[in-house]
Order: sequence, then structure tokens, then C-alpha cells
Amino acid sequence: MTGPRFTPLVASLPATVPFVGPETQERARGEAFAARLGANENVFGPSPRAIAAMKRAAPDIWQYGDPENYDLKQALAAHHDIPADNIVVGEGIDALLGYLVRMLVEPADKVVTSLGAYPTFNFHVSGYGGELVTVPFNGDFEDPVALIEKAIEVDAKLIYFANPDNPMGTRHNAAVVQAVINAVPDGSLLVLDEAYVEFATDGTAPPFDVADEKVIRFRTFSKAYGMAGARVGYGVGAVDLISAFNKVRNHFGMNRAAQAGALEALADQKYLEQTIQNVAAARDRITAIAKANGLKAIHSATNFVAIDCGQDGVFAKKVLAALIKRGIFVRMPFVPPQDRCIRLSAGRPEDLNLFQAAFPLALAEARK
Amino acid sequence: MTGPRFTPLVASLPATVPFVGPETQERARGEAFAARLGANENVFGPSPRAIAAMKRAAPDIWQYGDPENYDLKQALAAHHDIPADNIVVGEGIDALLGYLVRMLVEPADKVVTSLGAYPTFNFHVSGYGGELVTVPFNGDFEDPVALIEKAIEVDAKLIYFANPDNPMGTRHNAAVVQAVINAVPDGSLLVLDEAYVEFATDGTAPPFDVADEKVIRFRTFSKAYGMAGARVGYGVGAVDLISAFNKVRNHFGMNRAAQAGALEALADQKYLEQTIQNVAAARDRITAIAKANGLKAIHSATNFVAIDCGQDGVFAKKVLAALIKRGIFVRMPFVPPQDRCIRLSAGRPEDLNLFQAAFPLALAEARK
Repeated sequence: MTGPRFTPLVASLPATVPFVGPETQERARGEAFAARLGANENVFGPSPRAIAAMKRAAPDIWQYGDPENYDLKQALAAHHDIPADNIVVGEGIDALLGYLVRMLVEPADKVVTSLGAYPTFNFHVSGYGGELVTVPFNGDFEDPVALIEKAIEVDAKLIYFANPDNPMGTRHNAAVVQAVINAVPDGSLLVLDEAYVEFATDGTAPPFDVADEKVIRFRTFSKAYGMAGARVGYGVGAVDLISAFNKVRNHFGMNRAAQAGALEALADQKYLEQTIQNVAAARDRITAIAKANGLKAIHSATNFVAIDCGQDGVFAKKVLAALIKRGIFVRMPFVPPQDRCIRLSAGRPEDLNLFQAAFPLALAEARK
Repeated sequence: MTGPRFTPLVASLPATVPFVGPETQERARGEAFAARLGANENVFGPSPRAIAAMKRAAPDIWQYGDPENYDLKQALAAHHDIPADNIVVGEGIDALLGYLVRMLVEPADKVVTSLGAYPTFNFHVSGYGGELVTVPFNGDFEDPVALIEKAIEVDAKLIYFANPDNPMGTRHNAAVVQAVINAVPDGSLLVLDEAYVEFATDGTAPPFDVADEKVIRFRTFSKAYGMAGARVGYGVGAVDLISAFNKVRNHFGMNRAAQAGALEALADQKYLEQTIQNVAAARDRITAIAKANGLKAIHSATNFVAIDCGQDGVFAKKVLAALIKRGIFVRMPFVPPQDRCIRLSAGRPEDLNLFQAAFPLALAEARK
């Protein structure tokens, strides 16, 4: 033996990539996409105040970011009216999910999620040797009752529940979510991924109860705040759980300009409101485009919309390929029956103009 | 039991913080530092081209970064004249060290490093349950012979060797480093941390041999390129090892503006040359200041200098505290006999003016 000795677990892992990036597809195409609507990004972008803050921070990037994320945590605490000690800031929800799984999941531990839910969470669970147990969606909704029942059945350490959901964009209301939290069995932790919650109507998120040890809630600057490329997410939970992140997190992992940008983005709630309105208008237009093509869009509480292409996953995949060919980057759900849909971001008018023009052609090509 | 069930390993970990950040100290002081010279940051900052690129990228931060880091890897491959497949880009060397340790280290696995070497590496090793085995410095130098001997003795999975060294700033020449690589025992991997190597004279780094499975070398944009707060590091190694990072890394973890900035920083080798000259001049000046105070600076191949305060660690700590009190942020080595020193960054003339004025006062106060 000459090379390094991987752990048996890591040696057994496939070299999975949770998502292929649009840049990879662009390189393969030899051409940039005309509309970038596939990655659940917020095409309306960040607040001008956030942009200005990141520009101001650029010359000072020689300094490491504050490892305590103090200013941002204080601002988030004030914004949510909760103590800062109940907040952990990290390099996007993805990184925080990785830390969380690492803290709780050992080989053969059970983790419950919905079949077809967020692949990056699954990537982390498998990466630490956890055993994923899935329950199907109920229609186009995550099924919280089934999640809890399965968690009790398999003695799950973690239960993943995204509300609003990705990839379908549906949501449960706050009363249902609170009932899920209340039903979490002893020894389980509910991972409530609220990445898209700012786009949802009031009454989607129950109030924070930071004393509750049975749930950790994740929020992000990647979606409503339009800063996916900055990598700023946060978790809200009980003090013991939140402070445990300090045992494993990359203390100096935050980009300094991103910290500054997030702080200003949070302060500009007026811009956030405008974004939410822009996104709502774009969702309506996508729904109208679907209808004009004889199809139905799933009602969405997020900044993306799943369009039911009216047939199976094979057909939707053809539609997707035909859109990609026309320079429209979209994605689709991974598993049936949700994979009858394509999923696209609530784009700017110019993005949706392109989609509107390409969609009938893509459908016609797929039907051939 | 009501709360989440941590893994036994994570439950056993202390809530260690590898370093207290300067911002934390500033909040405690109620005042910003006048000179920020403690965190091995490059006070000369990034290339104006890198700054401009990060500013240009700010409005597009709504897009995730390219998960393949394709452009940066291609540029690094060209720069080092090695294939891109031998390069992994990540969120700073810190994150890459974390991924590497995760891939190789299980509870009770042995890892060899120098007593007093980089704490963040140790943080990761302990965090994955590895057993750290240390060898002392030889004088103010890491002792590569002792590292290899100890690795053979304990059957180490990883051997950490920083060249140039942190915290002392000393270096071994390329022939010695190559001899270390050649001596790595079967089943061990040498982690050659070259974070500071651009500051060292020619003849410090042996040529890359990307076929060699016994070594992974880490470089960064945090030091010579002046972008610590951007979080961009990279590793160079054999293809099998490099591709294994894809099993565990945070694929969408890179800040998009940081990717753009690093690309321009790399392209501006003229600016890098200027920085290296600025740093060399600052090192000379620190050495002269030490001498003017009757003390000796350790000859440094990095952008920081350790000044031997002439007594023990208790005394050096007093000097450090007296400097901090005067608004000069510096740090010091953790273990004797290196902790007889304080360590400060090669600052700008205005930073070193402040240090020059404060140092005699701090020494006098410490001697009282």
C-alpha cells in the first residue's frame, strides 16, 4: 500500500455531486444561458445597500471575517426578537446542514426525509454514514404526518422538513408546522428548512420558540435576500444545540464581504418587500404562461414554480432538454410523480419573455 | 431524553475556538485596534485588479458560484504547469484541512504534527476523533526527521508539516522538503502546508510531482495574495486523492465574488512581486526594531516575524498584553520555548510606526 488510507466510510462513498452547476452546462454547450432560471436563485438580486456594502468591503478583504459573526447575529437577534445565543451563522444552509449532520449522525443512524426532497441534505447524511429513510410526498406536498410516524418507527435522529418545500414550492401553514414540531419524538431533532419562507404568505412560519430543543430552523440570505453566491445562512435553535456548532464549525469560514453584505441586506427590509412583490408577480406570470400552453403550474410559496408538463418524467425531461437547448436553464424534480414537472425561478420580465417564447417550442419538440 | 442525541464523539468535544478573533478583543476593549498585526493577515491587501473583480461581481452575487471552480482551477493549472485534475479549490485551507481529515481520520487514528503548530489542523483532527501525536520543534524549526520517525513509530495516517512554518516563520529548503516527501511511510499522507511559501526565497518549495500519492500540498489566496477574508485555498495532489474531495466537500460552498477575485489576483503576478518586496522590507524593519530594543527577531520566510522577548512565556505574555493595551494587535506562540516570542505581521510603514513607538513602552511595562 502506498497511497493514503481513507476511512472505510469515505472509501465507500460515491463521488456524488448534489447538483450540476449551470456553468458546467454552459461549458458543455459552448454558450452562456440566455435565462438562468434553474438553480432557485433570486434573479432580482440583492439590495443596492448590500451591493454597496460588499463593494466597500472589497479592499479590506485582507482581513479575516469576524469568527463570531457578532454584528450579523446581533442584527438577526433584533430582527427576529430572539437572543443572539440562539443563532448560529454559517457558510450557507448547506454548510450548516453538514455541521449538524456531523454532530448527530453516525453510521447506521436513521434520518427521515421526503423522497425527492433536498439532495444536499441527503449528501451530508450519506456522507456521515447515516441511513436515509424516506416517505413519499402527499400529492405535491411534503407529508408531515408521515415524516413523524416514520421517525417514531425508525427512531430517527433527524427529521428533515422543508417549509415551503423544494422542489414543488408548496407549503403548510403555521398551525401544521407547529403541530409537527410538537409531535417530534424524544431523541429526534426536526430540521425545519425555511430557506424560502420569506416568499410565503404570513401564517407559514410559527413564532420562534428558542427554548424548544426539538427543532432547529434554517434561514438564508441566498433566496429572498438574493445573495446565493455570498454563502450566508443561519440556524435558530436551543442554546445547547447552537453552541455545539462551535465544536465543529469552520470558525474563520465566513467571507468578510458577505458578512457586511448580509448585514445591509437585512437592514433593507423595504427592498425585501419589493423583491417579494416582484417574485409574486413573476409567479403569476409563469402560471399564466403554463395556462396559455394548456398546462397547470403548482401553486408556489417560493421564488420558483413547478409546471406540470402533463405527462411523465420522461416527457418532462424532454421539455427540459428542449428548453436548455434554447438557452433557458431550468431544472426538474428527481422522482415520480413530481418529475412530471419542470421547475423554474421567478425571473425578471426579460427572463420570462424568453421562457414564454421558448416554452411552446420546447413542448412541441418534446411531443414529437 | 428530550433533546437531540449528539454522537458520542461530538458530545465529548470541548467547545474549542482555535483562535479568538481581533473583533472579539476590540469589543472587549470598546475600541478598535490601531494596528492589526496579530492574525498573519497581509496588511498590504489584494491586487487592485482583484478588488475591482470583487466589486464587479457584487451585483451578480445572486448567482451561486461555479461548484467546479473551473476557471480558477484552469488558471492555477496553467500557473503551476500541472493538470487541473490535480487541484482542489476550497473555502480556504482551513476548510480543505477539515475535508481531508474527515476523509482519512477515524477515532483513534494517529496524526503527527509539531507541538505548537497550526491549531486549526489540530481542531479538525480532534474533531474527527483522531489522536494527535506531537514532536517538539528543533530550535525554532519544525523537525522533519522527528516528524517522519514519529509517523513510522505510531503508523500515522497524516503528517502535518508547514513550510514555511507558523508561528515561527522559519523554513526548510526544497531539498529537505523533498527528502521529507520521499521518506513518508506507506499508508501515511504528508500534509504540506505551504500557506506562506510565496514569501519565501526561491529554493523553498520543491517542484510539484502530482503523481506522488504520499503528499498533498496546500496553498492559499489568504496570505501573499492578501485575501484572507475571501476564503480561497487550494490543494495539489494525486488525482485519486483530489477527486475524493468531491465525496465530502461543500460543492456550492465558494463565494462567487471570491472566485472572481482570486482569478484576477493570480493573474496580477506583478502586484504579488510588489507585495513580496513590501513584506521583505517590513520584516527587515521589524528586525531592526527588535534590535533597537536589545532583542532578536527570528529570521522569517513569511509575512510575520517572531520576536524573541528574551525571557519566558510569562514575560512575553506581559509584553503582548501591554501592546494590546496600546492598540497593537499581536499574537504569540502557544508552547515553550517558542512562547518566549511575540509574533506580528509585516505591516505597512504606518503600522510599524505605531509598533515602534509602543514596543519600548510595552517592554518597560512588562519588566516592571
